[in-house]
This record gives sequence, structure tokens and C-alpha cells, in this order.
Amino acid sequence: MPSKIPDGGTRGWLVPIGGAENKDHDRRILERFLLLSGGRNARIVVIPTASRMTETGSRYEKIFADLGAGGVTVMDFDTRRDCHEPGRLRLIEDATGIFFTGGNQLRLTTLLGGTPVAKLIRVRNAHGVTVGGTSAGASILSEHMIAFGADGSSVISGSVQLAPGLGLTNRFIIDQHFRQRDRLGRLITALAYNPFAIGIGLDEDTAAFISADEIIEVEGSGGATLIDASEATYSSIAEAGEGKPVCMLGLKLHVLVAGATFNLQTRMASAGALVKAKE
Amino acid sequence: MPSKIPDGGTRGWLVPIGGAENKDHDRRILERFLLLSGGRNARIVVIPTASRMTETGSRYEKIFADLGAGGVTVMDFDTRRDCHEPGRLRLIEDATGIFFTGGNQLRLTTLLGGTPVAKLIRVRNAHGVTVGGTSAGASILSEHMIAFGADGSSVISGSVQLAPGLGLTNRFIIDQHFRQRDRLGRLITALAYNPFAIGIGLDEDTAAFISADEIIEVEGSGGATLIDASEATYSSIAEAGEGKPVCMLGLKLHVLVAGATFNLQTRMASAGALVKAKE
Repeated sequence: MPSKIPDGGTRGWLVPIGGAENKDHDRRILERFLLLSGGRNARIVVIPTASRMTETGSRYEKIFADLGAGGVTVMDFDTRRDCHEPGRLRLIEDATGIFFTGGNQLRLTTLLGGTPVAKLIRVRNAHGVTVGGTSAGASILSEHMIAFGADGSSVISGSVQLAPGLGLTNRFIIDQHFRQRDRLGRLITALAYNPFAIGIGLDEDTAAFISADEIIEVEGSGGATLIDASEATYSSIAEAGEGKPVCMLGLKLHVLVAGATFNLQTRMASAGALVKAKE
Repeated sequence: MPSKIPDGGTRGWLVPIGGAENKDHDRRILERFLLLSGGRNARIVVIPTASRMTETGSRYEKIFADLGAGGVTVMDFDTRRDCHEPGRLRLIEDATGIFFTGGNQLRLTTLLGGTPVAKLIRVRNAHGVTVGGTSAGASILSEHMIAFGADGSSVISGSVQLAPGLGLTNRFIIDQHFRQRDRLGRLITALAYNPFAIGIGLDEDTAAFISADEIIEVEGSGGATLIDASEATYSSIAEAGEGKPVCMLGLKLHVLVAGATFNLQTRMASAGALVKAKE
């Protein structure tokens, strides 16, 4: 469960990114993440633990420095014991923005899950710190995480495996590389088990900026597919055999592009800035 | 536009199939098509014109004969002039079921479109004759047909080309091989232009049996994905540049499996026989 917001406080932004965000010319997603973390006064902690590639952390360090961040620290975790280390906890305590790179989301959850670091990140977000991540780093933000699953657009029983994520929100389930890997089927399957959550499928180079008042605004060059299953009238997943198609009736579907918004409380989508730009 | 139903008459069934229907052991889709065409008294006309393979017609001829059809005629068309030929028109006039094979839907529409054969098939369906088709033969049944398009689950401007189909219904747009070729994106794109229609995405070995009172019942081993765009609140396709993602808000989505139904008039989905089987 997300940490309690202190009296008079405001929860920090959550910024899941669908992977492969532009890192060269048009870095508007990372720029906006940095801006919401304090810009020139930002102290960013980059956590590259999902990745097995040694250069992942330093690459983001360089980008955030280029974009003008006040400070950037790369903080990797090799063991669960690392997640108890006071020096690291102090840096996280002091951060204004925390960023998870891509890689394998199960590496993040198996190393960080249930440790003081995971708890502290939830607490800091409740106290106003921006937390974001790309690809695997996006998936792990939510309470219920897609661990792995089959690609393809249909809803097949057993096509998705859920696992507990870091739990910064329990309002939605995030999937990434959405269009590039045709993941609609597994996202709907994930919702079929319990339709309370909103499914967010983020294309590459596309982010959902989620404010304290739970309004999502989309940024980037792709689309964000939102599946609202809360008014679903029927799901056969309790009866469907493994590998069989699932019957799922009454879903709502929105395809958002940059500037469009979705209110997680009212569940209303709006073309937002798209419409404004036309006026 | 569909032909007018004569006074006191009942429109015939429409049976779009998502392609690759089982032809060997479990032929329930083709069996049910035959049953609705009169079973032992059926006179089936198979139109293999979409296909370039010479054995396509004879294969279906054998299957329908094996299943006990009263009579089966394979009727190919090589030129538009063939579509005026009185002998062929007489056989169609006399048929109780008309079946279009798969292949290239543009071969069917370019040869048959606007000819006496196309008109007669519409008239006969309005007089109660069952008309079905698989793959390309499913796509051509509707007024607005997906001629070709990109695969993938996102909604991209220019990713789909529509063309006039045979026009047996203007209630929906049909896509086939839906899951196997990840065609959700192009189906939503097709609806984005004008949200009045229902989009039906049929998986392989899956059929929509559409009755005279416009109730769809799904049959077969896969799923039928229905997209109802009639309550869509926004579509950006008029402004989105070619190849750009499209914003599309307020769609309804249902995933139906065998036994589930959808009423095209009330736009209500029901798990149908699925629920009944549990009682």
C-alpha cells in the first residue's frame, strides 16, 4: 500500500515511462521528470539495478547532468543487505527525484522488496518526492506488477504472471513497450482477475505523468492505452482453462496521446491540451 | 446499403469467420453454417474468387458434402462479365447458403462490386438466405471493409485503408486473423474515422453468427473482440498526421468467446450460454 501522506503534505509525482524514451534530441520526458524533481536544485538518485549492463547508470547520470540537474547519484544494489546500508538510505532520504532504469523488473523486486529502501522510497513519495522509471522501472511502481507474460492482443488465461511491485500506487497496473510488443492481451488478462485497477499500456518514448490529485497527463511520441475494467459486467477467468480465451465484457478503452489526460478518481478521459491547442 | 427485407420476410444469417476455421475434426463453425443454410436440404454456393489457389473451391465443396449438404456448387468469377452471366445468377437465385472463401478481399470487391451478382446476393440475404465467409470472405460482408493495413495493437493514423465491401450490413466493420496478426490497432483506427459502426475482430477458428434480429453469437475456439465506438467522446484522427498516434477516448471493449452474445441494437454484451452452462 502507498505510504500515508503527512498532514498538509502533497504526494510526489509518479512517472512511469514505456521504455526507450528519447535520450538524444527530444528529451522532453526526462526533462519534465527533472523539472518536477526540482530542476537546477534537483538531487536525483538513479537506480540501475534492473539492468545487467554496467553503463546503464552512468548513461542516465550524464543525461540528467546535461539537462542541468543540481546533482545525480547512481545507486546500485547487488544484495538485499545493500538495501539496509545507512549511507544509501541517507542519500535517498535527501533525494528530490528517484529514477529506476529498465531491465528485469524481478531483479528490482527480489532485491528491494520488503527492505528499508523500498519502504523509504514509498515514504519519500508520500512526502512529495518524484519517483519515475522506464520499462521494468515503470512496471515496478505499482502494487500489482506484471512480472512476465505472452505477447499478442488477445486475452488468454495464464498469459500473464502478476507479482507484488514496490507499491507506490494501487490504482493501476502498468505495462510498457506496449505497442512495440503487442501487450494488450496480457494487460486485459491482468485486469480480468480483479477489475478494480486501471490498466495503463505505455508505448515506447511515452510517459504518464501522474499528479498528487491522481490526474495522468501523457507526454512523448506514442500512445497510452487505458483500460478501465471497473464497470466490467463479466469475466470468465475463474472458469477458463489455462491457455483458453477469456470472456471479458464491458471494458472501457481510451487511447491517449501527448497532452491528453485521465482522472483516476472520476475515470474521465480528456483530450486536454490537444483540444486547447485547437482553440 | 443492405437490401430491403420483403414484407413478412426475415433477413438471412450473416456468418463472418476469422479465417483458418477447423476443417478436420471439430468443424462446428462450418456445421452450423450448413445447418442455418438448410442442412440436408441446403443448396450451397461456394465462391472461391478471393483465392488464387485452384483447390480452394473443391476443398469446401468436399467439406460441405461430407457434412451432408443437399448440394454444393463451386462458382468462380474470372472477369466482371462473368458476374452478369444468367446461368450463374440462376444458381445464386436458387441457393440457400452462399459462402466466400479466404484470399484477397480486393479480388472479390474489384470483380463482384456493382455487378448483378453482388446485388443478387444482397437481395437473397434480405429474403432469408444465409451468407458467410472466412478471412477475406468475412471482411467483404460489410459496407465498410478493411482493405489492408498495418499489424500491431496501436492506433496510428494511416494504418488502415477502408474500401466499400459487398454491403450486406452497415452495422459493423469486420477484421479477421485478429489475435494471430495483432490487428486491434487497425480496427480502432478504422472506427476512429466515423465511430457509428461496431468493430468486430475475429480470431482464427472463430465466427460471429449474426441473426435477423441483429444478435451476434460467437462460435469456435478463439475470441471475438468487439469495439463499440458509438459513445466515444473524442477522436483526433482529423488532425493527426500520417503515421502519428491517434487519440481516441471513450471506447467500449468486449471480448466474447463461444456462447457469448452481443446485441447490435441495444449494444449489450452477454456471456450467454457461458452463464447458462454454470446454472
